[in-house]
Amino acid sequence: MFIHPSASIDENVKFGNNINIGANVFIGKNTIIGSNVTIQNGCEIGIYVGENDAPLIIGNNSLIRSQSIIYSGSSFGDNLITGHRVTVREGVKAGDNLQIGTLTDIQGNCFIGDFVRMHSNVHIGKYSTIGNFVWIFPYVVLTNDPHPPSDFYMGVSIKDFVSISTMSVVLPGIIVEKDTLIGAKSLVSRNTREGTLVAGNPAKEICLASKIKLKDGSKKSAYPWRRHFYRGYPVDVVNNWKAEFNI
Amino acid sequence: MFIHPSASIDENVKFGNNINIGANVFIGKNTIIGSNVTIQNGCEIGIYVGENDAPLIIGNNSLIRSQSIIYSGSSFGDNLITGHRVTVREGVKAGDNLQIGTLTDIQGNCFIGDFVRMHSNVHIGKYSTIGNFVWIFPYVVLTNDPHPPSDFYMGVSIKDFVSISTMSVVLPGIIVEKDTLIGAKSLVSRNTREGTLVAGNPAKEICLASKIKLKDGSKKSAYPWRRHFYRGYPVDVVNNWKAEFNI
Amino acid sequence: MFIHPSASIDENVKFGNNINIGANVFIGKNTIIGSNVTIQNGCEIGIYVGENDAPLIIGNNSLIRSQSIIYSGSSFGDNLITGHRVTVREGVKAGDNLQIGTLTDIQGNCFIGDFVRMHSNVHIGKYSTIGNFVWIFPYVVLTNDPHPPSDFYMGVSIKDFVSISTMSVVLPGIIVEKDTLIGAKSLVSRNTREGTLVAGNPAKEICLASKIKLKDGSKKSAYPWRRHFYRGYPVDVVNNWKAEFNI
Repeated sequence: MFIHPSASIDENVKFGNNINIGANVFIGKNTIIGSNVTIQNGCEIGIYVGENDAPLIIGNNSLIRSQSIIYSGSSFGDNLITGHRVTVREGVKAGDNLQIGTLTDIQGNCFIGDFVRMHSNVHIGKYSTIGNFVWIFPYVVLTNDPHPPSDFYMGVSIKDFVSISTMSVVLPGIIVEKDTLIGAKSLVSRNTREGTLVAGNPAKEICLASKIKLKDGSKKSAYPWRRHFYRGYPVDVVNNWKAEFNI
Repeated sequence: MFIHPSASIDENVKFGNNINIGANVFIGKNTIIGSNVTIQNGCEIGIYVGENDAPLIIGNNSLIRSQSIIYSGSSFGDNLITGHRVTVREGVKAGDNLQIGTLTDIQGNCFIGDFVRMHSNVHIGKYSTIGNFVWIFPYVVLTNDPHPPSDFYMGVSIKDFVSISTMSVVLPGIIVEKDTLIGAKSLVSRNTREGTLVAGNPAKEICLASKIKLKDGSKKSAYPWRRHFYRGYPVDVVNNWKAEFNI
Repeated sequence: MFIHPSASIDENVKFGNNINIGANVFIGKNTIIGSNVTIQNGCEIGIYVGENDAPLIIGNNSLIRSQSIIYSGSSFGDNLITGHRVTVREGVKAGDNLQIGTLTDIQGNCFIGDFVRMHSNVHIGKYSTIGNFVWIFPYVVLTNDPHPPSDFYMGVSIKDFVSISTMSVVLPGIIVEKDTLIGAKSLVSRNTREGTLVAGNPAKEICLASKIKLKDGSKKSAYPWRRHFYRGYPVDVVNNWKAEFNI
C-alpha cells in the first residue's frame, strides 16, 4: 500500500489491499475502495455535497487516472478504468468493467450495465439508462430535457451492444434498441429498431446493421460487432458470442 | 478565513471576508476577491499574461470548483458558480449570477449579462455578447471568424432568454433574438426572429417557440421558458415573470 | 533554471538550458527536454506505460500550459505551445511550431507536420496524418474506425494548408486535399478536391474556396488563407507566400 504524503485521505475511508494513491489526491469520508486500486495524481474522490450520506464505492482492480473527479453517492463494480480528468457526479450505479474515457462527464443519477466502454469526452445526462456491452464514442451527448430549460426530465435508454458513433446526440426519452449502430454525427430523435443502422440529422434508419461489411477484406458482416471484436473481453463472454454466431 | 498551506497567493491579492482556498491553488497579483468565496483545490486564478494591468475581480458569494483556470483582466459580479476545470481567458465582463459548467472554455473579450447559465463543455468564442437569462447547453460553440483562419472577427450576439440546445454552433456575426430556442445540433447561419424555434443544419425557422407544449401533461406552452421554470431565480425576478404572463 | 520544490523529476530526465518547471509537475524517465522550456503547474510529462522505451522529446522554446498530460514515446520539434489540460498519448511524431489548444486530446500514433495549429477541444484519432500549416478548429474529430468498435483502423490524411472549421468530423480513411476548407459542422465522408470548400452533413463540394471573399471590405479572396493571414509565421515563410500570390 502506497499513499503519497501529499494525499489527503479522510480517516473513515475504507480500503482493500494493494492500494496506490498518487500525489495531491483527495478522498472524502464515506468512500469504500476495493483491493488492487490505483488512484493517480490530483484526483478528487468521494466529494461530499451534503445532500445525503450515500457512500462512494469503487470495486476491485480499478484504475482512476490523474485529475479525475468522482463525487460521493455512486457505486462502481470491479475493474473500473478511467481516463484523465473524468467527472462523475453523485447517483451513478454502474456494473463491472466500466471504462470511462478522458474528459468524459457523467452527470449522475444514471444506471450503467457491465462492460460499458465510453471513449473520450462523452457526456451522459442525468437519468440515462445504459445496458451491457455498450460502446459510446467521443463527443456523444445523451440528453434528458425535452424543452430546455425545465424541471421535467426524460432520460434516454441505451440497450445492450449498441454502438454510438462520434458526435451523435440522443434526444430525451429515446430508446435505442439492442444492437443498434448510430452513425457519426447523428441526431437520434426517434426510437430505433433492433439491429439497425441509423444515421443523419435527424437520424433515419438506413439498413440492417448486418449489411455493413468489414473493411478488412474478409467480406464478413461487421455487425453485430461481437461477431468479430473480442479485445479485452473475458474468454467465457467471447465463447458465448462465438456460439451465438456459430463461429 | 481558511487558506490551505499549499496554496500560493500573491501578497497583493485583496480578499473580502469568509474566504476558503483549497490545496495547490495559485492566485496571481492584481486579483480582487469578494466575501464568502470558495476556491477549490488546484485552481489557478488571476494568471497574468503581461499584456495589461487589468485586475481579475470575483464578486461575493462565489464558488470556483476545482482545477479551474481564470486569467487576469476579467470581472465577474456576485454569485459566480463554476464547475470543474473551466477556463476563462482575459477580457470577460460578466454580470451577476453567472454559472459556468465543467470544462467550459470562455475565450475572453466578451460580454455576459446577468443570470446566464452555461452547462458543461460550452465554448464561447472571443467577441461574443450574451444577454441576460440566457441558457447554453453542452457542446455549444459560439464562433467569431467568418473565414478561418483570419484576423477579422465577427462576434455573435445572444439576446435575453435565449436557450441554445446541445451541440449547436452559432456562426460569426449572427444575432439570436430574444426568446429564441435553438434545437439540438443546429448550425445557426442566419439571424433568428424573436420567440421562434430554429433547428437543423443549416437551421431553419420551424415555428413559434410558444407552440411547443410541456411534456409534463399540463398542455401549457413550454416557451418562453420563464412561464414555468423558476429554479434558482430570486423571488422578485420570478414575480415579474409571473406578472408578464398573468400567472 | 527553476524547478518548483513540489515537482517530481526523474533523475534520468535530460534538460537543456533555461528551464522553468511549475508546482506539482511530474516528469518521467526517458524524457528529453530542450532549452528555454516552461512546463506549468500540475503537468504530467513523460508518463511511461511500459510498452516500449521510446523517449518523450520536447524541442526548444516550448511552453506547456498547466494541467497538461503528455505520455512517453512521442517527439515534438521546437516551439511547441500547448493550452491547458491537453492530453497526448504515445507515438506522436510532430514537427516544429505545433500549437495544441486547451483540452485537445491527441490519441497517439500519428504524424503531424510543421506549423500545425489545433484550437481548443480537438480530438485527433490514432493513425491520423496531418500535413504542414493545417488549422483545426474547436470540437473537430478525426476518426479512424470504419465500423466501431473494431480492430481495423483507417487513419485520415489532412494535407497542407487545410482549414477544418468547428465541430466537423472527418470519417475514417478520408483524404482531405491541400487547401481544402471544411465548413462548420460538416461530416466529411468523401475525399475532397484541392482548393475546394466542402460543407454539410454529409459534406458536399460547394465551390472553389477561392470564391469566398474576405468580409473586411477588401473584396479579396479569403482562400488560400495564406494570401492574407500571416500572424505568427516567420518572415521567410510569409515572403514565400507573398511571392506565390504576387502580393
